[in-house]
Amino acid sequence: MNRTVKVALGARSYEIRIGTDIPVFGNLADARGVRVLVVSDTNVDPLYGDRTETALCEAGVTVTRAVVPAGEATKGQEHVFALYDQALAAGLDRGGIIVALGGGVVGDLAGFVAATFLRGIRYIQVPTTLLAMVDSSVGGKTGINLPQGKNLVGAFHQPAEVVVDLSTLTTLPDREYISGLAEVVKHGVIRDAAFFERLEANTERVADRDPEFLAEVVARCCEIKAEVVAADEKECGLRAILNFGHTLAHALESLLGYGRLLHGEAVGIGMNYAAKVSERELGFPSGQAERLETVLGQWGLPYDCTSMPDLKAAVAPPDWAAIWAKMATDKKVRCGAPRFVLAEALGTAVFGCEVAEETLAEVWREMTA
Amino acid sequence: MNRTVKVALGARSYEIRIGTDIPVFGNLADARGVRVLVVSDTNVDPLYGDRTETALCEAGVTVTRAVVPAGEATKGQEHVFALYDQALAAGLDRGGIIVALGGGVVGDLAGFVAATFLRGIRYIQVPTTLLAMVDSSVGGKTGINLPQGKNLVGAFHQPAEVVVDLSTLTTLPDREYISGLAEVVKHGVIRDAAFFERLEANTERVADRDPEFLAEVVARCCEIKAEVVAADEKECGLRAILNFGHTLAHALESLLGYGRLLHGEAVGIGMNYAAKVSERELGFPSGQAERLETVLGQWGLPYDCTSMPDLKAAVAPPDWAAIWAKMATDKKVRCGAPRFVLAEALGTAVFGCEVAEETLAEVWREMTA
Repeated sequence: MNRTVKVALGARSYEIRIGTDIPVFGNLADARGVRVLVVSDTNVDPLYGDRTETALCEAGVTVTRAVVPAGEATKGQEHVFALYDQALAAGLDRGGIIVALGGGVVGDLAGFVAATFLRGIRYIQVPTTLLAMVDSSVGGKTGINLPQGKNLVGAFHQPAEVVVDLSTLTTLPDREYISGLAEVVKHGVIRDAAFFERLEANTERVADRDPEFLAEVVARCCEIKAEVVAADEKECGLRAILNFGHTLAHALESLLGYGRLLHGEAVGIGMNYAAKVSERELGFPSGQAERLETVLGQWGLPYDCTSMPDLKAAVAPPDWAAIWAKMATDKKVRCGAPRFVLAEALGTAVFGCEVAEETLAEVWREMTA
Repeated sequence: MNRTVKVALGARSYEIRIGTDIPVFGNLADARGVRVLVVSDTNVDPLYGDRTETALCEAGVTVTRAVVPAGEATKGQEHVFALYDQALAAGLDRGGIIVALGGGVVGDLAGFVAATFLRGIRYIQVPTTLLAMVDSSVGGKTGINLPQGKNLVGAFHQPAEVVVDLSTLTTLPDREYISGLAEVVKHGVIRDAAFFERLEANTERVADRDPEFLAEVVARCCEIKAEVVAADEKECGLRAILNFGHTLAHALESLLGYGRLLHGEAVGIGMNYAAKVSERELGFPSGQAERLETVLGQWGLPYDCTSMPDLKAAVAPPDWAAIWAKMATDKKVRCGAPRFVLAEALGTAVFGCEVAEETLAEVWREMTA
């Protein structure tokens, strides 16, 4: 059931290889003598570090491993500069390669180091979380956080390849796995109603992590993302639709403190919010908003601030003024007003929508009532 | 005597405008409401900061000024992150612009911040040193230093425009000005023998900073650099010729301590060295090597380690083993061996040359005997 998805970006084109028994670094055969720095974290390195190193060594390259602490706090200044040091100590030159083995944090961090070390060297994404497989490992966005906010610093730097080994999902904790499903659903909502329906009809296979169905799901998400990225690599327009649900999600993550709400959980709430705003602004059918809630809820994803028991118990939902202030500093802001990605219907997203603050506030209050 | 040089890079094309009375930010007329961060240093801001701010404000943008300490030590981690903070505090969004007002350090640092802030925003180079006008402000290389070496981190990020106001050269200290002449001569050596001859025939006008002749000289250097960069933006091949003289220069700067030898002074020595290596390897005519020495010497540029009194008094020339070790860690190294840019004759450079260590050592010993 191995699949390959191509990302068509001219000279920067690359392949995403998806499977459970793929020869991980097959096309490094011409890379004998190359120095490789494998960047992983304290969760993933013990599980997959040795296997990855072995596969790389078989391809003939010289491997050094760097392990960063697991968690969003790692994606900052300190670890960027520590990785530069490790890349130099490992002898990486302009022909060197960085392998990002892990989830979104490792991919974004290691990708940013690859984008800037010696003005840019090659890197390979080896995502080990569902979120990274369907979203962050594809498309070349890299980034680090500043104390003021997430991903405020970064670069567009396409990977040389993406290697998705679905067997790594077997060790992914439930909450992480479910969080990743929010981004899976998003691809259906913004671009492919039939894919959304296929997910609706197979919520159990998804919940059971059925490898055959997951191969199909991950491949379809990668195809959709690849198509959008190929049309608009630097997010001048269409690519913004990938941010469906993300304006509220970023504000929530920031206000509640990163780590309390996983990214996908925040996106679940954010998509539901965007659907409700879309009902008012673009006539998004209300039955479809309910279907979205149902799918998210069946997997245990929160769809509003009261649907996740942990969250409900731990904190009160932020009030609107706080959310609005955060939205106004989102990096997608232009000339002071946040722009929204909305949907006309399942499968059809629209970007760059200005929405009156009143409407935004009303929908938020409804969701938290 | 205003001149315009175009850098042809498709969607990333831009103009270099050269003159003494140019409307500095003429084509920001559509930029009303845009937030601009002007980055300058403690030498340049007192001289040209106000004038630049006034010109920008007349174009209707909102200006904030950031001033970093003058000197190479500024081009590192600390000031990069301080500038991110200042960009955020100044309210720059993705439509914001960074203006780099100063020499190479300011241009490289501010350019790197622009390349990475919010995954890349526009920047305008306003070079105020000869070196920056003819070299570092053009071509989109940005970079910062690590403790292990110069420019080990960076990005390719083309400016939106380059504004060269030759009148700023009137305040440039002699040693800085003369240092910049090394890069001027380099453009003749690598690509244009007639331009080299024109410099030879006009060494006094150059020494006198004759504005009319300088306009011609700066424009010709920018044309040559623009042509090379347009052919090979990311330095996969031809662009390497711009590094003529730089492999030794980087090693000398690093071994003697940055600041003791200005970059152009190191390049003067490095070009002379490369010419002598070229004599042995590529039959570079020995008469031409002497002409190069003569031109450099007439302006007081060092052409070997004994031709600069300050340097001679202060330090012994590094021994070969130390230089060779530094060359081996240069970021142009591939697979352990440094590659050299050599010349077949004045005006014709060749890149990617492997040279036996014996030859390299011999030439170095001759130069320091």
